Amino acid sequence: MKFKRSERVSRIMKELLEHPNEILTLSHFSQRLNAAKSSISEDMVIIKNALEKAREGRIKTVAGAAGGVKYIPEASKEYTRRILEEIAEKLKEPDRIISGGFLYMPDIMYSTRLVEGVANIFATKFEKMEPDYVVTVETKGIPLAFMTARALNKPLVIIRRESKVTDGSTVSINYISGSTGKIERMSLSRRAMKPKAKVVIIDDFMKGGGTAKGMKDMMKEFEAEVLSIGVLVETTTPVEKRVKDYIPLLILEEVIEERGEVKIYPNPRVFEEEGQPEDQLPEELEAQE
Amino acid sequence: MKFKRSERVSRIMKELLEHPNEILTLSHFSQRLNAAKSSISEDMVIIKNALEKAREGRIKTVAGAAGGVKYIPEASKEYTRRILEEIAEKLKEPDRIISGGFLYMPDIMYSTRLVEGVANIFATKFEKMEPDYVVTVETKGIPLAFMTARALNKPLVIIRRESKVTDGSTVSINYISGSTGKIERMSLSRRAMKPKAKVVIIDDFMKGGGTAKGMKDMMKEFEAEVLSIGVLVETTTPVEKRVKDYIPLLILEEVIEERGEVKIYPNPRVFEEEGQPEDQLPEELEAQE
Repeated sequence: MKFKRSERVSRIMKELLEHPNEILTLSHFSQRLNAAKSSISEDMVIIKNALEKAREGRIKTVAGAAGGVKYIPEASKEYTRRILEEIAEKLKEPDRIISGGFLYMPDIMYSTRLVEGVANIFATKFEKMEPDYVVTVETKGIPLAFMTARALNKPLVIIRRESKVTDGSTVSINYISGSTGKIERMSLSRRAMKPKAKVVIIDDFMKGGGTAKGMKDMMKEFEAEVLSIGVLVETTTPVEKRVKDYIPLLILEEVIEERGEVKIYPNPRVFEEEGQPEDQLPEELEAQE
Repeated sequence: MKFKRSERVSRIMKELLEHPNEILTLSHFSQRLNAAKSSISEDMVIIKNALEKAREGRIKTVAGAAGGVKYIPEASKEYTRRILEEIAEKLKEPDRIISGGFLYMPDIMYSTRLVEGVANIFATKFEKMEPDYVVTVETKGIPLAFMTARALNKPLVIIRRESKVTDGSTVSINYISGSTGKIERMSLSRRAMKPKAKVVIIDDFMKGGGTAKGMKDMMKEFEAEVLSIGVLVETTTPVEKRVKDYIPLLILEEVIEERGEVKIYPNPRVFEEEGQPEDQLPEELEAQE
């Protein structure tokens, strides 16, 4: 069966998107689509251009014997701002405020579209660090950590609150919750990670940083190096957190329960980073028009 | 900025894939890609053909004022068999056996590729039932339930083992674990679902069916109708489960600890269903070649 160019291009795009950050060889596409490698190579140029013009991720060519192409999801500054502002607006809804000044967040943390957006933001920040695993602790951050792992094409590791018989032998640690000051427990199966790995940690919310500190301590037990910690929402108080070197995407300044007011905004530092795609087209692409 | 046809087709494919089961209008693409609606319409025919020839999901045209097109992920029988056999093979690895005859499964339940495959299988079975929510209980089944929700474009609901202050007011129920016979507890925020919804339940493992029964009871509290229950692995013993009307994808017959042997296979009933895409091309498509 033969495919027309535009049909081939759409099928190649589908396969690249379904396997982010995975190297797919030209021979693979050449066989699947019954086309010469030179044609597939031309198809790739078209896809590369379409993505780059649209600022929607990029195609990287990997040379060598195991070479091929891979699709790297990328969140441009404009995309990042749009997603974070949408979440901030939602979190300002007065009926989210729970007695005690907490915010109801599960609908956001389980929204397939928003989670994918935030995961692309984290993947853009973490891709160059080349982590071996994406680590989180149950429960609310799991979809976000899973989608970040998917974008980076790395395995997900979930630390549990209690160990289960189906985890086999586990490592358990105690840690102090930053918000409640209570001693809590977390555990992780010994099989979950190879030793001396490099990891990024994802969590949905940081107040005192106790849980994040617990996860860092757990990683020490596996001799793992924590490259970075990505947090969706950070509260401004307490100012002193139990961890440093984390990236919060949204800053929650205050919840004024009696007035139904929530002060939250995207972290301006998120946009300062070098290397994140700008929204304008680079000159060489414009010149092609 | 203008795009060539093949560039347009690749960008439309990307957007459709990133929004499974969501209606996107021709006007939307026409604006984004700066092209006439008639051109976009032709692009859609190309994408439709490419997907249908490859048996990799389909494009549905939705008529009317809110009309447009949507991409529906579909797992063909061959795709279903490939994914399930790969998981069965992995579960047969002797070093997964944990003392007591349990199997270590987190690496499979958190594998982005396998989870997406299984989610596509469940989405294919559940799409026509038109559920309002995909429901699961923490923890191991969360990525699978999330990806099923993503494929169906429906919100995910996660039942917790214990209620958290950030859940606001919750409904809690006690249930009897089918495997241990112990009384366990689960809770769900009152805000998590609108009442009288239609739901599908996803779980990773079923032994006695106690947890699934607990989830069904929880759904009663929300006046929800349970359309179906999708389970990745079911054990053959006990024969009597606490729920009926569930779909297991893999059958775990026996774990012989001393011999390191695991008897597990894809559920033959999974392939019997009407309406699941066959692997051969339908005649009308072949005729187009």
